[in-house]
Amino acid sequence: MYDDISAWSMRLRSGDVRALSRAISAVENGAPESEPLLRALFPHTGAAHLIGVTGAPGTGKSTLVDRLAAHFRRAGEPVGIIAVDPSSPYTGGAILGDRIRMQGHATDNGIFIRSMATRGFLGGLARATADVALVMDAAGKRRLLIETVGVGQDEVDIMGLADCTLVVLVPGLGDEVQAIKAGIMEIADIFVINKSDRSDTDRFEQQLKAMLSIIPERGGWRPPVVRTIATENKGIVALADAIQQFRQHVERSGQLQARKIASWKQRLLELLEARFLDRVVARGIGEKGLESAAAEIAARRRDPYEAVAEILKNSGLT
Amino acid sequence: MYDDISAWSMRLRSGDVRALSRAISAVENGAPESEPLLRALFPHTGAAHLIGVTGAPGTGKSTLVDRLAAHFRRAGEPVGIIAVDPSSPYTGGAILGDRIRMQGHATDNGIFIRSMATRGFLGGLARATADVALVMDAAGKRRLLIETVGVGQDEVDIMGLADCTLVVLVPGLGDEVQAIKAGIMEIADIFVINKSDRSDTDRFEQQLKAMLSIIPERGGWRPPVVRTIATENKGIVALADAIQQFRQHVERSGQLQARKIASWKQRLLELLEARFLDRVVARGIGEKGLESAAAEIAARRRDPYEAVAEILKNSGLT
Repeated sequence: MYDDISAWSMRLRSGDVRALSRAISAVENGAPESEPLLRALFPHTGAAHLIGVTGAPGTGKSTLVDRLAAHFRRAGEPVGIIAVDPSSPYTGGAILGDRIRMQGHATDNGIFIRSMATRGFLGGLARATADVALVMDAAGKRRLLIETVGVGQDEVDIMGLADCTLVVLVPGLGDEVQAIKAGIMEIADIFVINKSDRSDTDRFEQQLKAMLSIIPERGGWRPPVVRTIATENKGIVALADAIQQFRQHVERSGQLQARKIASWKQRLLELLEARFLDRVVARGIGEKGLESAAAEIAARRRDPYEAVAEILKNSGLT
Repeated sequence: MYDDISAWSMRLRSGDVRALSRAISAVENGAPESEPLLRALFPHTGAAHLIGVTGAPGTGKSTLVDRLAAHFRRAGEPVGIIAVDPSSPYTGGAILGDRIRMQGHATDNGIFIRSMATRGFLGGLARATADVALVMDAAGKRRLLIETVGVGQDEVDIMGLADCTLVVLVPGLGDEVQAIKAGIMEIADIFVINKSDRSDTDRFEQQLKAMLSIIPERGGWRPPVVRTIATENKGIVALADAIQQFRQHVERSGQLQARKIASWKQRLLELLEARFLDRVVARGIGEKGLESAAAEIAARRRDPYEAVAEILKNSGLT
């Protein structure tokens, strides 16, 4: 397709949409060319602002992301959207249904939208999402919106990439559905109450703020609560302002850097893991050996811990 | 606490609840004594039937698990329940709210209930759940009910442990919330329509069956649809019958064994990974080295792929 990695990288950085598309497919699939490409692109990354948007299904995240993207585009900023859909663990491809709403952007070259589906491999989704974000960053996207459904471990891992995390809630959707009880308080930098024309919005906001008041501030920032009605494009400017304020806060306080370092630490471990598994399968035991060890363990003819010790030994790791 | 691992193991196997509780805490926390304990227990495992129960929040899973547990208890079978709550990624402990409903079992020695919360480490939750299941298995629990919320990658990994997977749906809760569109079709061995006294149950069941009819059968089994009203204890016997039929089907066809082998293959990889990371941190780079490598990468002074190659070299893996 391309003469060499450096030509591909140059085309991508100059805004060639096809080069970008192919690069994303390559890193998503872990193709052999993805590593040299990522190495070539890496020095040209680091300028993008990563905004994570998470919330339960039905909270209107996609529409909100759509409206935020349009807002940033009006300010002239190139935008990338990465939509992660963990409800689709097996399809391999991505569910594009929600994206149809975004087709208003289809002719805008300054916006690039990619949907990703969960894959069956350990930690694979967070790693692939991080790589896709790097590629979009190198392609000059200055705002990256990463949208995830719900708050499970995948989401927590993916949100670890973001410079700013928005948690989207809706009045009356039920605390249990929205997982407000636990976990969410810690990952939110900004709370968004979407569909805020619902009648119980005032009470909902009071409850949310009451909960927020009892948890300690993190690094001098108390997550603000912003009301939006994404379908009517209401509250989007206020939300963008809150995002900007948080950005200034973490930049000035040095927390942004700390966050980036923590994220890279995690990514280093993920990369190491992937290399290790490649080696174990290639040298330590092989696919067939792994299968027969598993069969012996399932039949209780062998102890899994003994098997692991042997595989590590064969891999040159004792 | 115990003189040695073998005394602990014997007490646990003889039904000592305190020995079981402490063993579960040890494996959940990855305590140093957990591996020798798991080794001692391993030959005494393999008899438990693992039933995974998954579904969106609000589908009444906990009540259904409660009623199924009571049903198995009436048949004299020792029951273990493992409730995994991924909405709580940071609390360390577990959210016990839903379990309060189960307190009717509190005085029943034949039933053991444990709630687990997601932990922040890669793949940690699936591994810990698998280990807790092994411990309960060794303690003589013949039915293990593993309850998870939603269908993300965590759930898929955890459901990989189960011999039989129930997917719980509720009419009118919304396709998007229940993630019916994708993914769920592939993991369900049995569909449960709970709260089936709702008015739109007939239409919902028709739609579900229409969807089921277009996907290919897996191994000669078409997932049945069972209606329940768990709060009124309705449909529980029919559900237990369906579970029994599926069990016979997979045992006769050899699919149960194939499933167990696939599950052990995954667990071997997870164990290998954990060992590898321990070693990388202990020998290859150390916590501090990892931190400073991450800082250099974040500042774009270093390439992550180069850093990974160096860490692998220092770990004795090149």
